[in-house]
Amino acid sequence: MSVLLEFSMFPTDKGESVSDQVSLVIAEIRGSGLPYRLTPMGTIVETDQLGQALELVERCYQVLDKAGCQRVYASLKLDIRKGRSNGMQTKLDSIRKKIGEITS
Amino acid sequence: MSVLLEFSMFPTDKGESVSDQVSLVIAEIRGSGLPYRLTPMGTIVETDQLGQALELVERCYQVLDKAGCQRVYASLKLDIRKGRSNGMQTKLDSIRKKIGEITS
Amino acid sequence: MSVLLEFSMFPTDKGESVSDQVSLVIAEIRGSGLPYRLTPMGTIVETDQLGQALELVERCYQVLDKAGCQRVYASLKLDIRKGRSNGMQTKLDSIRKKIGEITS
Amino acid sequence: MSVLLEFSMFPTDKGESVSDQVSLVIAEIRGSGLPYRLTPMGTIVETDQLGQALELVERCYQVLDKAGCQRVYASLKLDIRKGRSNGMQTKLDSIRKKIGEITS
Repeated sequence: MSVLLEFSMFPTDKGESVSDQVSLVIAEIRGSGLPYRLTPMGTIVETDQLGQALELVERCYQVLDKAGCQRVYASLKLDIRKGRSNGMQTKLDSIRKKIGEITS
Repeated sequence: MSVLLEFSMFPTDKGESVSDQVSLVIAEIRGSGLPYRLTPMGTIVETDQLGQALELVERCYQVLDKAGCQRVYASLKLDIRKGRSNGMQTKLDSIRKKIGEITS
Repeated sequence: MSVLLEFSMFPTDKGESVSDQVSLVIAEIRGSGLPYRLTPMGTIVETDQLGQALELVERCYQVLDKAGCQRVYASLKLDIRKGRSNGMQTKLDSIRKKIGEITS
Repeated sequence: MSVLLEFSMFPTDKGESVSDQVSLVIAEIRGSGLPYRLTPMGTIVETDQLGQALELVERCYQVLDKAGCQRVYASLKLDIRKGRSNGMQTKLDSIRKKIGEITS
């Protein structure tokens, strides 16, 4: 099973720039040892267990809580597929191959 | 603390109509005993612990897994606010009061 | 065709409470004359043209821009279905009927 | 102004694998000439006008409509910031720099 989690979490009580807090979240994600990709709009993490992905979300909130955030917003997307492995790479490869075919 | 979770989860391998599967998810949410609101685009649940909200998400997936879904998509939004209680009602009341002021 | 748009938009440079700004957005939605439902996590609007839904999103941003917001975040979900009408009510009715059957 | 749009759109009436349809969407995005990044969970596009981003969303739907999709789901996140340019790169650079500082 491949669980892909696209995930952004940030405080809404810390003003216009929240890169300090977002950096704490991403450091926590990196510390999990799970494969991840940083994007300009969030982070994508892959696991083979949904619970593992959701526990990571909870730990990321705890980091923001400890950093003094009073209000936190998060947006998550999950793509859970049985019988798939290495979904992060497989999905990209599949799309890239097909786009290539379209344009050639 | 008030945790508001807006949440939709559905299989993508079961064709155009997924109301059977969505009904299973909502029955699981209702069975949790947590306050919830059904909307045409998802369900909103309130808890005072983030972990409780995320465990519910996991149980909802397990229900779809048992129902034979091979691929499941979910979209979640979280609004976590310390020092707030009864956020589901408080937020609506606050907005409705202000909209009333704008139009009068 | 029925286009359902679930939609939240708020500034992230205005501190912890943004109900003043969210009220402006909802007043704009109401002013559109489109059927809508207010929820604790966003607003759901129904149209029969995707362009109409997206123009409304743009007008809502313009309202926040005029109100002095420097940074705005929005989250949208779209469910676009051909051959459906009155999707907001139809979806809820379908789910409610099935949940009732499950519990009876 | 920098408008970042994170965006996924797919049919839900075409079975478990939708990479054919997703490829059509991404070809349309690429054809727009706007800077974009492909991720395993969607595509990120940058413009300096919100309207331009939303028109692209509409064109992507039209592509799926022409390809015979009866039901389409989309999830969008917008980060709109005045006085920022090249937001896609700026945000990543800012986070990467801070993560480096945290771990060193």
